[in-house]
Amino acid sequence: MNQPVDNRAARDDYYRRIGTQGMTPLWEAMSALVPETPRTPCVPHLWHYDAVRPALMESGTLITAREAVRRVLILENPGMPGSSSITQSLYAGLQLILPGEVAPSHRHTQTALRLIVEGEGAYTAVDGERATMHAGDFIITPSWTWHDHGNPAEVPVVWLDGLDIPLVRFFDCGFAENHPAESQPVTRPEGDAQARYGANLLPVDFRSTRGASPVFAYPYARSREALHRLSKGQEVDAAHGHRMQFINPTTGGPAMPTMGAFVQWIPAGFSGNAYRSTDGTVFQVIEGRGAVEIAGRRFDFGPRDTFVVPSWMPYRFVTQGDETVLFSFSDRPVQQALHLWREERIA
Amino acid sequence: MNQPVDNRAARDDYYRRIGTQGMTPLWEAMSALVPETPRTPCVPHLWHYDAVRPALMESGTLITAREAVRRVLILENPGMPGSSSITQSLYAGLQLILPGEVAPSHRHTQTALRLIVEGEGAYTAVDGERATMHAGDFIITPSWTWHDHGNPAEVPVVWLDGLDIPLVRFFDCGFAENHPAESQPVTRPEGDAQARYGANLLPVDFRSTRGASPVFAYPYARSREALHRLSKGQEVDAAHGHRMQFINPTTGGPAMPTMGAFVQWIPAGFSGNAYRSTDGTVFQVIEGRGAVEIAGRRFDFGPRDTFVVPSWMPYRFVTQGDETVLFSFSDRPVQQALHLWREERIA
Amino acid sequence: MNQPVDNRAARDDYYRRIGTQGMTPLWEAMSALVPETPRTPCVPHLWHYDAVRPALMESGTLITAREAVRRVLILENPGMPGSSSITQSLYAGLQLILPGEVAPSHRHTQTALRLIVEGEGAYTAVDGERATMHAGDFIITPSWTWHDHGNPAEVPVVWLDGLDIPLVRFFDCGFAENHPAESQPVTRPEGDAQARYGANLLPVDFRSTRGASPVFAYPYARSREALHRLSKGQEVDAAHGHRMQFINPTTGGPAMPTMGAFVQWIPAGFSGNAYRSTDGTVFQVIEGRGAVEIAGRRFDFGPRDTFVVPSWMPYRFVTQGDETVLFSFSDRPVQQALHLWREERIA
Amino acid sequence: MNQPVDNRAARDDYYRRIGTQGMTPLWEAMSALVPETPRTPCVPHLWHYDAVRPALMESGTLITAREAVRRVLILENPGMPGSSSITQSLYAGLQLILPGEVAPSHRHTQTALRLIVEGEGAYTAVDGERATMHAGDFIITPSWTWHDHGNPAEVPVVWLDGLDIPLVRFFDCGFAENHPAESQPVTRPEGDAQARYGANLLPVDFRSTRGASPVFAYPYARSREALHRLSKGQEVDAAHGHRMQFINPTTGGPAMPTMGAFVQWIPAGFSGNAYRSTDGTVFQVIEGRGAVEIAGRRFDFGPRDTFVVPSWMPYRFVTQGDETVLFSFSDRPVQQALHLWREERIA
Repeated sequence: MNQPVDNRAARDDYYRRIGTQGMTPLWEAMSALVPETPRTPCVPHLWHYDAVRPALMESGTLITAREAVRRVLILENPGMPGSSSITQSLYAGLQLILPGEVAPSHRHTQTALRLIVEGEGAYTAVDGERATMHAGDFIITPSWTWHDHGNPAEVPVVWLDGLDIPLVRFFDCGFAENHPAESQPVTRPEGDAQARYGANLLPVDFRSTRGASPVFAYPYARSREALHRLSKGQEVDAAHGHRMQFINPTTGGPAMPTMGAFVQWIPAGFSGNAYRSTDGTVFQVIEGRGAVEIAGRRFDFGPRDTFVVPSWMPYRFVTQGDETVLFSFSDRPVQQALHLWREERIA
Repeated sequence: MNQPVDNRAARDDYYRRIGTQGMTPLWEAMSALVPETPRTPCVPHLWHYDAVRPALMESGTLITAREAVRRVLILENPGMPGSSSITQSLYAGLQLILPGEVAPSHRHTQTALRLIVEGEGAYTAVDGERATMHAGDFIITPSWTWHDHGNPAEVPVVWLDGLDIPLVRFFDCGFAENHPAESQPVTRPEGDAQARYGANLLPVDFRSTRGASPVFAYPYARSREALHRLSKGQEVDAAHGHRMQFINPTTGGPAMPTMGAFVQWIPAGFSGNAYRSTDGTVFQVIEGRGAVEIAGRRFDFGPRDTFVVPSWMPYRFVTQGDETVLFSFSDRPVQQALHLWREERIA
Repeated sequence: MNQPVDNRAARDDYYRRIGTQGMTPLWEAMSALVPETPRTPCVPHLWHYDAVRPALMESGTLITAREAVRRVLILENPGMPGSSSITQSLYAGLQLILPGEVAPSHRHTQTALRLIVEGEGAYTAVDGERATMHAGDFIITPSWTWHDHGNPAEVPVVWLDGLDIPLVRFFDCGFAENHPAESQPVTRPEGDAQARYGANLLPVDFRSTRGASPVFAYPYARSREALHRLSKGQEVDAAHGHRMQFINPTTGGPAMPTMGAFVQWIPAGFSGNAYRSTDGTVFQVIEGRGAVEIAGRRFDFGPRDTFVVPSWMPYRFVTQGDETVLFSFSDRPVQQALHLWREERIA
Repeated sequence: MNQPVDNRAARDDYYRRIGTQGMTPLWEAMSALVPETPRTPCVPHLWHYDAVRPALMESGTLITAREAVRRVLILENPGMPGSSSITQSLYAGLQLILPGEVAPSHRHTQTALRLIVEGEGAYTAVDGERATMHAGDFIITPSWTWHDHGNPAEVPVVWLDGLDIPLVRFFDCGFAENHPAESQPVTRPEGDAQARYGANLLPVDFRSTRGASPVFAYPYARSREALHRLSKGQEVDAAHGHRMQFINPTTGGPAMPTMGAFVQWIPAGFSGNAYRSTDGTVFQVIEGRGAVEIAGRRFDFGPRDTFVVPSWMPYRFVTQGDETVLFSFSDRPVQQALHLWREERIA
């Protein structure tokens, strides 16, 4: 059958009529709905910490942690203004807690991760145990666990927050509630979870009840030492350097069901191969100085900078005179659980 | 710290300045981002097949299956106009294939399910095997498998399509390609997959390579017989009747990683308890007549009607003089894999 | 150090002394404890049903089912006299139940399988449901489930029993108890388990609680039909024909945790390649006539014959004028769960 | 039917006749084959290290490590003389390596574990990496991995060997071969496996290929520190103290598929509740002094002693003035994988 001009009018009239019945024609939307390759609305972007820090400290003069509940500046992808998202499924922000402050205790469906950027001595409490935080430490607050923060130390503390807020909203499954107390009671000594679950041992009667790791604090000292030892071996990945994933030692799977978290070591003077994968990824620079080329655009980075690589965009690293350590997170565990994940090494 | 009036002006000025750096304040968006309970944009809705059928048949006069690629009227949730979605994560549509037509072969990341509504004798081909479709049959075309349809019979055939199109778009991981041939070659006889994987047997060397069930056709005759036998037992669920999930017999898990599919039998004269869960669900009536009350609104239904129950809205069934059989699908497997799913029985 | 003659005497004296302390020298036993390849005590053997049947029927005149509890002639591997075992880990026997008899209800840690050899109309009851048995049917009575048998029909019924009795004894974990009633009450109609678990559907609230399949009856009619359909496809394994494993559809794994059960179809005039694996296997001929060569020895078989192939002995099949169907069982699931299993195709 | 005296003669004659056909009557063996509770041939036993050590050192004068291949005194359960087994499924022995010696490299299906009893500075090599051993360290040599030992230090080193030798022989699946070199080449630096797999991180491309943990060395320093931290918490198990299992961090499951390994800390002055389980267990005392009552028999123990608790025998601990640390191993992972395991706390 042809498509004569009057058929277009007939079609438009038809579309109007069926629209009143809550229906639309697939054939007019096929390429948008079933694209040949991913068409992300996200764009690459980098936030220089030196530029961001003043704004963060200024927030400390404008609002208290108690009023804000969480004093966080959301890093929003310029390709999705108004979304409060850094990729379609992920949220990222920089949180500041000043000396003496407390961020009240609550719990919610959304899982959160923290990568400490600056400062030392503040704590995160999860399910009755406190973990003191240091720069480079990786902390998780699993879905539906009571959590709160406090800063009994003398210096401001800043960390990068990563949450699956957009994902939980997409699946319409978000719940939240406040703890009756501002700070949950401490019921286990610091280091208990690591000893109980993270030392290549498990209690004989342990039965896993939730998706996330019961080890909720991954100190940078331990991870850095592991990376250091690995750097003694010869083989370094041509794209990633040594890239490791934080795991749930009770399953060997990712530390959180909805967000994969990674740490990678790149040697000085590295000129990496390009790589891409379907999980848009947020990177936080812990150590080192270099550049990342994302889909042809070059972004120079230094310590404490944050950048986002959208889904399926090729990227490669070039580093300078020191070892570089990058933290990163993405929704890879979700894509892998759903058999949707792809990656590609580009020679 | 107080919040004097000039602090509001100071805050607004601050928000404008940080906005230029790609940042926004969390504390102004907290309740929207981290709600106490799910706040779905979806609304309940029902499409009467008797009202929809004429529009569907009319599409057959306006466009060929070949030009359309897939001649489908998308059922769009009135709460999300322009989204082509029936819930936030799911797509549903009614597809028509006329006698003699072929829907060309392609493959894509998105998984599809079909529930045959009307007609008989058309086929779906998946990975080299054809399955002849009958009313009530449930067919899957797993992610990235070549699939096409044809109608060598004398009557129009209509089915309900369900796809994870919005989910795949959300995770920016969609790929698609066309088969070189309009119809893929047939390499296995009809019924091969069922014999090889669905008879409570598996080949000794079988190793699971993908997420979805290798059994891709679930004939209504078999499912109806199973439901019939179950109806002989005494215990019927006070909310669901007998509700069963289609499984992947090589894992015991859901037939598809991204969409759960269900079939339930409800006795005549049933007055069910209310129930709700976080997975918004699309229902297709196969047999029977009755009503569903969704968040207090009553929708009368009959055979071939389609309705959607949004996330976390309570619903209950009331049936009339015949046994009722409903097919349904939702994103439950995703929520369960991510430890996000909740349900509640309301006495 | 050399080993002078007086060192042998010194060693012998040493061995005597340490023997009183409950110690023995490993170096004198190394090759027996850690052999280069498996050194099974089992030998190949075949029991012709025509020769065995008279003895079986004679047992019916010597003892009642009630007194015997189970009237079974144990098939004992001639390489392990007095062991009541057919391979090191498995037990096999032929059980006879006469018209009107009942084998009382009990439960035990040991899992049992049944392959019906002769007769029809007797039943096996498992957990409140009865399954009527026909020749070729495969039935399981999972660990610790109440089970009993009865024969309300007019003809004697004979089946092959397979149990993990030696395995359970080896691990010192066997428990057993009698049901208060001779026959357990019937609480579910016949066919309920198949409808509930075996139709590629599962109840929405189903949570797996045990290792074995909840489908406990695998009728020969269904399996034979599946094999028939597979025989229409071209590719037949050069050693096995079409070999399938009975599965637990709630996991995709073997029907029982301790015993794998298989059924294979071999075309007429088959001259198979040699094959061996570490799981010693018991075969029961359901249909057909041919021969099996085990480690060079030829055994002719016909319908209803039973034969055993020890671990790691190569075997091959040669069949005659009809299609052949063989049932078999082994401890393969255990070896695979423990990462111990090996197989080898010998060209 | 009665059982007149001539029926006994008839039965005996029958048994003789069917015996020639490789058959025996189940009804004469029922209670032995299907017992009401486990009837283990094992007995409790304790080896005092002070009594054993002289014999071990004497072996060093009688045979070289090279001639012996492994210079080990097997601890044989007095209830199973000639079996080389300590429980039905497990083997245990004490191995001595003198300064300068090498135990040649080989691999075999059997998995081995080592618990260092005395000395320091010897190494175990697994798959190209060496681990220096210290008292209390727990080392595994997984199935089919190349392994060898050497003692470049100045002192004799002694460890407890645990192997699944009887289990592998029971399943007729044992293979073994010698490495072409006496000591396998070192391809990875010491500590590589721990850094790569044991630091709550895994390489991004890691795919598990075998059953056992890739972390093969579990230093006592780490485990002791974890136990120390746990002892700060309040709740101590009334039977076990704090009992932990060594895990495979890539799965959260046991370190080895066939043998569970445990370490437990018991406070000073502990008077424990009785407990029993179906896995016969071998204990090695690392620290502390006390007694274990096994089925009513009391065995006093001190550091370096070894004792065995048979399956299903109740046992309880009573400790004296110092903290006690016990290592133990059993076949629990096998029983649990097969859904056979039971435990019971006896108030």
